[in-house]
Amino acid sequence: MEQEYEVAIEMKTGVTAPKGFKAAGIHCGVKRFKKDLALIVSDVPAVAAGVFTQNKVQAAPVLLSKKYLSENEKFRAIVINSGNANACTGERGYKDAVMMAEITAKELNIRPEEVFVSSTGVIGEPLPMEKISAGIKKIVHHLSDDDNNTTAEAILTTDTFIKTASRSFDINGNTVTIGGIAKGSGMIHPNMATMLAFITTDAAIEKNVFQTMLKDITDKTFNRIVVDGDTSTNDMVIALANGMSGINPIAENTEAYEIFYDNLFDVLKKLSIDIVKDGEGATKLVEINVEGAKNNEEALKAAKTVALSPLVKTAIHGEDANWGRIIAAVGYSGIEFDPAKFEIIINGVPILLQNYHVALPAKEANKTLKPKEINLLLKLNIGRGKATCWTCDFSEEYVKINGSYRT
Amino acid sequence: MEQEYEVAIEMKTGVTAPKGFKAAGIHCGVKRFKKDLALIVSDVPAVAAGVFTQNKVQAAPVLLSKKYLSENEKFRAIVINSGNANACTGERGYKDAVMMAEITAKELNIRPEEVFVSSTGVIGEPLPMEKISAGIKKIVHHLSDDDNNTTAEAILTTDTFIKTASRSFDINGNTVTIGGIAKGSGMIHPNMATMLAFITTDAAIEKNVFQTMLKDITDKTFNRIVVDGDTSTNDMVIALANGMSGINPIAENTEAYEIFYDNLFDVLKKLSIDIVKDGEGATKLVEINVEGAKNNEEALKAAKTVALSPLVKTAIHGEDANWGRIIAAVGYSGIEFDPAKFEIIINGVPILLQNYHVALPAKEANKTLKPKEINLLLKLNIGRGKATCWTCDFSEEYVKINGSYRT
Repeated sequence: MEQEYEVAIEMKTGVTAPKGFKAAGIHCGVKRFKKDLALIVSDVPAVAAGVFTQNKVQAAPVLLSKKYLSENEKFRAIVINSGNANACTGERGYKDAVMMAEITAKELNIRPEEVFVSSTGVIGEPLPMEKISAGIKKIVHHLSDDDNNTTAEAILTTDTFIKTASRSFDINGNTVTIGGIAKGSGMIHPNMATMLAFITTDAAIEKNVFQTMLKDITDKTFNRIVVDGDTSTNDMVIALANGMSGINPIAENTEAYEIFYDNLFDVLKKLSIDIVKDGEGATKLVEINVEGAKNNEEALKAAKTVALSPLVKTAIHGEDANWGRIIAAVGYSGIEFDPAKFEIIINGVPILLQNYHVALPAKEANKTLKPKEINLLLKLNIGRGKATCWTCDFSEEYVKINGSYRT
Repeated sequence: MEQEYEVAIEMKTGVTAPKGFKAAGIHCGVKRFKKDLALIVSDVPAVAAGVFTQNKVQAAPVLLSKKYLSENEKFRAIVINSGNANACTGERGYKDAVMMAEITAKELNIRPEEVFVSSTGVIGEPLPMEKISAGIKKIVHHLSDDDNNTTAEAILTTDTFIKTASRSFDINGNTVTIGGIAKGSGMIHPNMATMLAFITTDAAIEKNVFQTMLKDITDKTFNRIVVDGDTSTNDMVIALANGMSGINPIAENTEAYEIFYDNLFDVLKKLSIDIVKDGEGATKLVEINVEGAKNNEEALKAAKTVALSPLVKTAIHGEDANWGRIIAAVGYSGIEFDPAKFEIIINGVPILLQNYHVALPAKEANKTLKPKEINLLLKLNIGRGKATCWTCDFSEEYVKINGSYRT
């Protein structure tokens, strides 16, 4: 019996892992066949935090969810559709987003402003509200505390697998859990594809503490795969904390804060790396570590420039340790840089040492790119700044996928 | 007889079109089979102007040619090798570049500092100086005033065709000619591939006037396909003016200046568009015109962001008039932008009008992308700023070419 109970606990993954959260994912007809509607509900009012796209073009659900977050203290649900972004849809689009919140609220017997709304998919087409309305009336009957994976599936677009993560840990003798799901897969300009993430936790935490923490961790995880300010019209990260673990509210400068921060970081990092792994046409995960820059900002700038370079990414795909493309990318990144001091280490093997010393013949160097996971360490040797970001290689498949997304 | 003479004149194209210039292109062994060494020589000392890469990593020939340009008044020759960039090659690389100037000077009986040196190809490998030295001793015997096309061929790398242009025009009763050749073909991040251009003219012009003009026109042509500051290690544009047309030196604020400016602009624009057309894997030439921006700088920023977007470029390749990707790219370009005022016109056909009004069904809109030359007009409707840039579509071929460039 106890064994069975353990298994049942483990089944509660992702957003349904924390106490007091239910979720569901169904097909309502925005897409032809695949699941396209998801709902996440907290049994009790929850504190929320949110990070939204910096794009000047903001989809209606982004505008609405930002408004609700700023005007209210407690929240109960997140309703998400995929297949249609409800972006560039004008007043009608905004009314449709409001209607999604209203219908969800009515079905759950809560207030509309307790419901976050999120959409992802094609830009510029009106939402098929009849289908979505009927879908919301149906999905509330599917809510379950062990239905994470269908929920995670219903928010996908070109993704090839679901992204989900959870962590349980102890704070002052209570078990606290954080869970999350995410979607996102376009990777050559990671900024361009919509990235959504929804996080649940049964921790108790004040709204402003939670907001600052979520923003900080998002900058070090999702924003290390998504270039700052260069985001899609629909990007959002929403986190709900319902306090059902029974802990006292987490305050800053406490051990509980540290523990919670580290675990939230792990969940967001795992989801971020899943997004990179699912990069359109990706065959390799690349972690880029820059060390020895003038400062951390410059290290990040160099890392992101290399991560964005199609010439570097195609070379990695072709398992060609073409360090000239890497040094050229750092050279145009705009940071302080002395190419004669530059070093490149791939998966622990030095490829280029200082004074342009090529450490290995090309054929040997290329072997370092054989694995599916590549660690690219770039040492600038001029300061103490460092940064990490993640990217994927870049294959012919990317073009095929993006040349025919709508057809 | 007169007819034959006319034909002979027309044969003198590109860098050998102006009076008093000879050129040649040969194979010297840097590449396995293709031509890889070019030489352009003025019969008399010529005024020069030059524009060089902004990359922090600058190849040895860039460093040397910049030094010669700044320290000397008159020049006689440009020696160029392809197949090896002589970049990231340290002190040895610099000595090799000096040696290329010295050997060329000795063979032509001129001074080394009258010789510009240029290289393009793989980064980080030392130049095979024995082959280049023997090549220079050979190429001087091939110099000819109607050998433009082999010269244009010898500077290519992944290019699939030669880029050459010339214009003859009248200034105060004298015929003046400008000719040029260029290389460059990587296009997804246009900045990444080396772009070289060599311009000759028999006009007379002061060095500082020529320099200002070349910089200005480069900003409106080559830099409209190559993003500012994001250039390769080897980019350079060198122009020689030998005065052999017999005109008085062209001064600023004169009609002669205007005429010369317009014709130099035409030559550089033609070469720029040729580079875009030869984009790796390109099947379509795209001219992007942004109008109604807050100012010209913002218009250019928007145009370049759209031109760089892989999602826009793959959509154009797939003949998918996916205006959502265009509006999203303008949205993250960082400029002042009201998406509700935005309009998109493709090849004269309105696709998107203000207030997100979709002017055509997707199937009809897609037909506007059938032609090989696409004119994308983006109206922001908030000011008077405008800008033009050029790009190409983005196909699977790009990845194939760049994943295996060295193999």
